Amino acid sequence: MEFSELIKTATVEDVLLSRPGLPAVRGTLCITSHHLLLSSCPRGDLELWLLIRNVDAVEKRVQNLGWYQPPRTGGSLRDTRVSGSSGTITLRCKDLKVLQLEIPGMEECLNVASSIEALSSVDSVMMMYPFFYRPPSLRLQQGWHLCPPERHFQQVASQALLRSSQPLTGPNRRRCREDEKLLGTILAEGERGFVIDTRSAQAARQARMSGGGTEPKSSYPQWRRLHRALERGRPLQESFAKLVEACGEPAPSMERWLGRLDGSRWLSHVKAALSTACLAAQCLDREGCSVLVHGAEGTDTTLLVTALAQLILDPACRTLEGFQGLLEREWIEAGHPFQLRCARSASSHARGKQEAPTFLLFLDCVWQLSRQFPFSLEFGEQLLLTLFDNAYASAYGTFLCNNERERSLCKVKESTHSLWAWLNQPEEKQKYLNPLYSHNPLVIWPSVEPQSIQLWQGFFLRWIRPSQHLDEAWVEIRRLVEGNSSSIKEGNSSSIKEGNSSSTKESTGKRLSQSLPEPPAGTENDAEAWTAGTR
Amino acid sequence: MEFSELIKTATVEDVLLSRPGLPAVRGTLCITSHHLLLSSCPRGDLELWLLIRNVDAVEKRVQNLGWYQPPRTGGSLRDTRVSGSSGTITLRCKDLKVLQLEIPGMEECLNVASSIEALSSVDSVMMMYPFFYRPPSLRLQQGWHLCPPERHFQQVASQALLRSSQPLTGPNRRRCREDEKLLGTILAEGERGFVIDTRSAQAARQARMSGGGTEPKSSYPQWRRLHRALERGRPLQESFAKLVEACGEPAPSMERWLGRLDGSRWLSHVKAALSTACLAAQCLDREGCSVLVHGAEGTDTTLLVTALAQLILDPACRTLEGFQGLLEREWIEAGHPFQLRCARSASSHARGKQEAPTFLLFLDCVWQLSRQFPFSLEFGEQLLLTLFDNAYASAYGTFLCNNERERSLCKVKESTHSLWAWLNQPEEKQKYLNPLYSHNPLVIWPSVEPQSIQLWQGFFLRWIRPSQHLDEAWVEIRRLVEGNSSSIKEGNSSSIKEGNSSSTKESTGKRLSQSLPEPPAGTENDAEAWTAGTR
Repeated sequence: MEFSELIKTATVEDVLLSRPGLPAVRGTLCITSHHLLLSSCPRGDLELWLLIRNVDAVEKRVQNLGWYQPPRTGGSLRDTRVSGSSGTITLRCKDLKVLQLEIPGMEECLNVASSIEALSSVDSVMMMYPFFYRPPSLRLQQGWHLCPPERHFQQVASQALLRSSQPLTGPNRRRCREDEKLLGTILAEGERGFVIDTRSAQAARQARMSGGGTEPKSSYPQWRRLHRALERGRPLQESFAKLVEACGEPAPSMERWLGRLDGSRWLSHVKAALSTACLAAQCLDREGCSVLVHGAEGTDTTLLVTALAQLILDPACRTLEGFQGLLEREWIEAGHPFQLRCARSASSHARGKQEAPTFLLFLDCVWQLSRQFPFSLEFGEQLLLTLFDNAYASAYGTFLCNNERERSLCKVKESTHSLWAWLNQPEEKQKYLNPLYSHNPLVIWPSVEPQSIQLWQGFFLRWIRPSQHLDEAWVEIRRLVEGNSSSIKEGNSSSIKEGNSSSTKESTGKRLSQSLPEPPAGTENDAEAWTAGTR
Repeated sequence: MEFSELIKTATVEDVLLSRPGLPAVRGTLCITSHHLLLSSCPRGDLELWLLIRNVDAVEKRVQNLGWYQPPRTGGSLRDTRVSGSSGTITLRCKDLKVLQLEIPGMEECLNVASSIEALSSVDSVMMMYPFFYRPPSLRLQQGWHLCPPERHFQQVASQALLRSSQPLTGPNRRRCREDEKLLGTILAEGERGFVIDTRSAQAARQARMSGGGTEPKSSYPQWRRLHRALERGRPLQESFAKLVEACGEPAPSMERWLGRLDGSRWLSHVKAALSTACLAAQCLDREGCSVLVHGAEGTDTTLLVTALAQLILDPACRTLEGFQGLLEREWIEAGHPFQLRCARSASSHARGKQEAPTFLLFLDCVWQLSRQFPFSLEFGEQLLLTLFDNAYASAYGTFLCNNERERSLCKVKESTHSLWAWLNQPEEKQKYLNPLYSHNPLVIWPSVEPQSIQLWQGFFLRWIRPSQHLDEAWVEIRRLVEGNSSSIKEGNSSSIKEGNSSSTKESTGKRLSQSLPEPPAGTENDAEAWTAGTR
């Protein structure tokens, strides 16, 4: 497949881009293999870039403003074009941004829409943008080996928090002597451990029919099993979609809004995840017991619980570096299937069965922790937003594929840049630090009462009600912390976002061989560029 | 009446005070005319003070831990006391704090409870604590004449925002030539004004039956009437009580919590008040029209709207000094009946018909503004909390009585201290300033979408889930702003709160002539002292 086959119209003049809460921009629209580019008219001094992978759903509406001219016999579709016809394309992005393009000419409109649909649905990993993106300030292989798991295992020699998939007892209640022995070696005689199963007891029993199951008491006499059912899969995805829809409803009554907030059940999932993580942390910290966490596969809700428990217990995980290590270890290397789970976001109608915002739920829980403990996390909300954006559409390879095996097959670490390498550049890093951070050696026990759980407005209302003033407040606080000798160059970061400097070099070139400018290097996803400079 | 008649037991030994989230304190309980005082045992190094006026409801539960001994014939109640009997008194305070006193001896318990009930219900203004309180750092008459209304009227020469009570058209549709002439003089020929009536059109029509009514079009041809119904009176009080009850429920499910939050309708009232204030501000700012606001009496929802509209429009009202002037002008001098409205808070079962938390609703709306515009208000959340506390129970005379006439009759300005005098002392003032404030000359239009309105956790969850970490974050930000040459002496302020220094002198003395220590001078209400030092 060549990208050029998917691009039916590469350039359209006189396109009007509308973004909620921002002035509209008129200009020339270009479609490249990986980006939409709008160059403003008449001066062309503004370039707006959108990573096409960020498009979640394309809605089109064509209207004939002139008269209808039936096609002549033997004529092509092109002949039906009449002056005055136009179309509107609504792009619902994975990061929840909504953009509108008004395109003159019905045919162009349909062509642009189907090009975007095709390009955003390419599912071959090695055709994705990270394999083409070569920012000048980074070199390949930088940032890929943050914290080898061996080193981590040496650090936590007691290995008290474990995770696994379910035991495969099946309908015949098979035993696995190796598993029993393994779990037996962890506990000394008379010691006790807890198995936290993230499924209901009933669901765990039912899993036997398809070969799964639970640890029978008789085989694991020192382990006590606790069931804490956490939502996953389709219901979680629907919860996310419902909440996003409710957030976007214009001017609902308070009653309707609270009803829809409740109906989405998202905050219940946040509460349940935090509660279960606290349970695991309590077993470890207060009871001094070993804990094994699993659900079915051990790659979704399991990771939610183990990653949050570590964040609650271990101050080392609450630094920027430690948190990156935690994500590497507990999400990426542990095999959370990012490609399947984050293929589509809240708006897509073509949802697969495998999508689920488990990672978003984790980020939301981390945000709740950061709100309740404003001093204890070294990173701020901006990092969490950037992680979400990159998990769903990215210029970096960090969240590509579903597990280490796939990443190895695709040579992700050899052929793409690491998000961490970008984030950890000194100037870039500044944006993600919490200016109020001070090392807190204690366990941070969050309140999990529903009265204490809040909607993450900075994420769910990010593009609807820009939190401009709150963002500015954080910038101001950071400025204060750094004193007058501040090294932050705000002009720099905004010029990166605005995309005026096009110094990026792409080395490999399956891109359309058009004389198009290069996308700007940046935090990516480039989606930011469609709104940046005004937030 | 003498206070001594109301105090049935003045001193009880070995009382245990429990406060949620804080360690219990055992000590000697003393009841004075205006305060409960607990001196910790054995060392007596901790004195906890509670202004009795702050008590909203007293609940008692006695239990006989020993055996029951029937009273002997002719014996008094005292004779029924048996060793081992005890009682628990729960004090629900107007500032939503909940305290428990365990008192040995059934009779003492009943005596203490009825003493507190009687003292907290004294309704003679001149018996209240502000008439006895004489802090050493202040002199009487200081702070009482912040901004004489005449000066304000000179400043706003166009007088474009007006308020009044309803016109008294009555069932016979009387006209009032003077009113018509007055409103006529405001508008030049061809100009247009808006009357914002804070009642529904139906309620306004019904008001004719009791002598009230609305401005008929025929008599006020240049004025256009808009109805925006705002809740008031009993339904508003019930909304407040419902929300407080919901906030206090331990461990509800998320669904139940959101259901109760919705059922209380409090956030709807916040939204409605802000929306109506925005409407008034828009008529003034965008349409350039004069606006008259009224409901029925013009002393409740009317003030809510005019005060909020001024805060939105006028940067001068957003300074600490300007906000105090706004409160003086639009609430106190305008005749909001504080004594009737704030006699009881959310917990009292003996609610009168006149209670309504209109002022709290205003403070909540101001908090929403401060959250959406973190730079634009010179004062922070702590001021709003202090204002609520003092409106309901205070050592100062500022919120006493229902109007200027009553204040003059009671000689409030001559015989009590002004809250503003206390707040404006340089060291005290620091606590109420917003460290991020920078003058913003623009109109601040808040988002009034329900998605943007948040529960004011700092108020509603103040004693349930102490926001210790968030408070510390603000202290830290203030410290940063002030640099290393900080003049805040935290030790000082906490010693004031803890009540260890008892240098206060009371000049007049209807107090019980007991050898009791004096209450500490402080921000008051002294209630703070029952929890301070740990928040």
